[in-house]
Amino acid sequence: MIPSKVNIEKALKVVQSFAHRTPVLRSSSLNEIAGCRLVFKCENFQKMGAFKMRGALNAIANLSDAQKAKGVVTHSSGNFGQAVALAAKNLGVTAYIVMPENAPEVKMDAVKGYGGIVTICESTLQAREDAAAKIQLETGAAFLHPSNDLNVIFGNATAAVELLEDHGDLDVILTPVGGGGLIAGTALAAHYYGSKSTVVGGEPFEVDDAYRSLLSGTIETNTTTNTVADGLRTHLGDQNFPIIQELVSEIIRVEEEEIIVAMKLLWERLKIVIEPSCAVPFAAVLREKEKFQNKKVGIILSGGNVDLTKLPF
Amino acid sequence: MIPSKVNIEKALKVVQSFAHRTPVLRSSSLNEIAGCRLVFKCENFQKMGAFKMRGALNAIANLSDAQKAKGVVTHSSGNFGQAVALAAKNLGVTAYIVMPENAPEVKMDAVKGYGGIVTICESTLQAREDAAAKIQLETGAAFLHPSNDLNVIFGNATAAVELLEDHGDLDVILTPVGGGGLIAGTALAAHYYGSKSTVVGGEPFEVDDAYRSLLSGTIETNTTTNTVADGLRTHLGDQNFPIIQELVSEIIRVEEEEIIVAMKLLWERLKIVIEPSCAVPFAAVLREKEKFQNKKVGIILSGGNVDLTKLPF
Repeated sequence: MIPSKVNIEKALKVVQSFAHRTPVLRSSSLNEIAGCRLVFKCENFQKMGAFKMRGALNAIANLSDAQKAKGVVTHSSGNFGQAVALAAKNLGVTAYIVMPENAPEVKMDAVKGYGGIVTICESTLQAREDAAAKIQLETGAAFLHPSNDLNVIFGNATAAVELLEDHGDLDVILTPVGGGGLIAGTALAAHYYGSKSTVVGGEPFEVDDAYRSLLSGTIETNTTTNTVADGLRTHLGDQNFPIIQELVSEIIRVEEEEIIVAMKLLWERLKIVIEPSCAVPFAAVLREKEKFQNKKVGIILSGGNVDLTKLPF
Repeated sequence: MIPSKVNIEKALKVVQSFAHRTPVLRSSSLNEIAGCRLVFKCENFQKMGAFKMRGALNAIANLSDAQKAKGVVTHSSGNFGQAVALAAKNLGVTAYIVMPENAPEVKMDAVKGYGGIVTICESTLQAREDAAAKIQLETGAAFLHPSNDLNVIFGNATAAVELLEDHGDLDVILTPVGGGGLIAGTALAAHYYGSKSTVVGGEPFEVDDAYRSLLSGTIETNTTTNTVADGLRTHLGDQNFPIIQELVSEIIRVEEEEIIVAMKLLWERLKIVIEPSCAVPFAAVLREKEKFQNKKVGIILSGGNVDLTKLPF
């Protein structure tokens, strides 16, 4: 059963009070290259640099006052930790962020800068989960999952709602697929706010768990994580998978080289800084051009937190 | 004598018909770092990637029909050639662009892609001027100067007019200073459309001709051009210098290292691609923080055409 529209309406109120309404960019030269009319929703310009701010805000706002008083906890090597720290600060809630010891120092500094309380652990998933569980036990903080949480998904949906408010005539909206929280939210937005928009995911061949999950009908995982799109290595969860099964038309897989070409094109033509993961949907459009021919295509550019000294091109 | 406001009003009509109204970005973290309230007018998102599109459009639009029929010519290794080619295409005019043989192939391709007729010459100023003069003689095309042309200056002014429409309460507006066409236009915009905005230039110590020109009262030139801000190596001209003398408050000089630090900060925090020249005004704000303390500061980000494989950081 698909969650009702009222959840997204409530999320819009929360998110639009604290997050940026991000701009939508276009480029004639990219339209020519792709053979369709593209609009890009720039969540790389979102606060803390990624759409994850939206989901974190909505998840924290939906806690009870008693839960809020005890704080929130998550484990993250990247954007979600920053998003929870900043969203919690905005909402006056304590945030405990477990980070693996190999997380970039700049990301740890960002979390601390937002007032998050950082706990460093070994870089295994087990160590991260153990550290978060210990904090939950000690403080009573509520655990927040980056993608498999309905309130996170409703928050994420607001990016596509804004895009559809600006461009109601989109034939299709694409997002990258990692843990599934963004594409599930986008699919709900298209379902309730779109007039005719289908939703398509982009996923690297190297971590094509979501593609395989849609084929098999059960949540598949990845045995390797060998992709430049470091935000897309995770797999779907029981909260977002049913939404994706019901409302997502298709997942298009792309090669690593295609991701890098697409990323460089977006930097060059849109003049923006985006993460490799963020280039995957545009790579999918370029790979299957005939599918999008002359259509009006919206792409959610998910984030821009990238180490400028370690670019893949 | 300062040119009248009607010139800019006319330029607005031309420019806003063909150019993007570029977005204005802000960043809380940059505000904290700088100690003032910053707004950035993103001309890196302008068509062809730089504010020069505005001046080129207005200069071509102001030609007589007889002149338009014969075309326009300029010499350029960079943005102005692209701007003239694209503006001419929009206005149905033939553009002849003289480019030095060492100009990046990607820039030559861009000019050709916009329908410009490219003539390649040696990379000396003499060879460039000779080649342009020959084309003028043969075709009757009108020569367009990138910065020392009043209609170019009026076109450039429209960026600051838009910024002031969005943020009328700016205490100061900063631009980089190269040939003087952008700062002269910005100063006119602040004069006629600002309520209280002063205009300040940023210039590298390595090519501080404009700073010295304001001191000496005559147009000074540079003996070396050893700066990462490759768009700022040129000097002022007789059309823009009087405007700058009359209406610009100050020019702040910055070190090369300060430009690179400012550029990287803008990339990281605003998530945008900008040229080194474009970072000079922000470097000036960081260098003389006390001067801008708690003020509302507008910065014109002039362009984003940069070779992504040759970044200075």
